[in-house]
Amino acid sequence: MANEIDGATGAVFEALADPARRQVVALLSGGPRRAGQLAAATGMSAPAMSRHLRMLLAAGVVEDERIETDARARVFWLRPQSLVAARAWLDQIQADWNSQLASYKRHVEGSAR
Amino acid sequence: MANEIDGATGAVFEALADPARRQVVALLSGGPRRAGQLAAATGMSAPAMSRHLRMLLAAGVVEDERIETDARARVFWLRPQSLVAARAWLDQIQADWNSQLASYKRHVEGSAR
Repeated sequence: MANEIDGATGAVFEALADPARRQVVALLSGGPRRAGQLAAATGMSAPAMSRHLRMLLAAGVVEDERIETDARARVFWLRPQSLVAARAWLDQIQADWNSQLASYKRHVEGSAR
Repeated sequence: MANEIDGATGAVFEALADPARRQVVALLSGGPRRAGQLAAATGMSAPAMSRHLRMLLAAGVVEDERIETDARARVFWLRPQSLVAARAWLDQIQADWNSQLASYKRHVEGSAR
C-alpha cells in the first residue's frame, strides 16, 4: 500500500474541494484568462475571485503572469502538472483495492474446493 | 469544454479535501475495516473518526454493513466507483488543456510563416 500523500497533493485536493475553484480550473483548461474575465464568467465578485485565485496559486494549481502592456493586470494559467499527483493518488487507491479484491477472490475460491 | 460537475462528484472532492479522510480511504483500499480499527490505525478518537466516516458515507466514498455476530459493530467498505467521476473530471481538464495548447501551437506556427 503506497498511500503516503505529500502536502502538495493535499493542497491540490483542498483547492478542488470548492465548486467555484473547480469552475475556475475548468475555465482555465480552455486557455489563460484575466481575473476579471474569470469573475465575469462565473458571476463572482472581484474580491471573491481574488480569494479563490490566491488559494489556487498557493496550491500550485494555477500560476500568474503580469501583462506587459498593463502593469496592473495579470493573466492566470492552469498548471496541469499539479493535477497529476492527485490523479496518481486516485489510481493507487483503485489499484490497491483491485489487488486486495483479487486476493480475497483467490482465498474464497480456495476455501470452496 | 465538458466541465459541468455534478453534486456527487463535488461531494467526493470535498470528502478528499481532508488529510484524515484521505488516510481512511487509503486504509480501506486495503480491505474493509471496523471504525475502531480505523481510529486505532490513524490515532484518531472514536468521535472524530465517526464524524469523518459520516462524511465519507454521505459522499458515497464508503459504505457500511452491520456485522451479523455483533449488532453494535459495523464494517466499512470502500466504494471505488465513487472515485471514478473525480478521476474522469481531472482527465477532462487535462484533455481540454492539451487540446487548447495544440491549437495555440498551430496558431503560432501559422503566424511564423
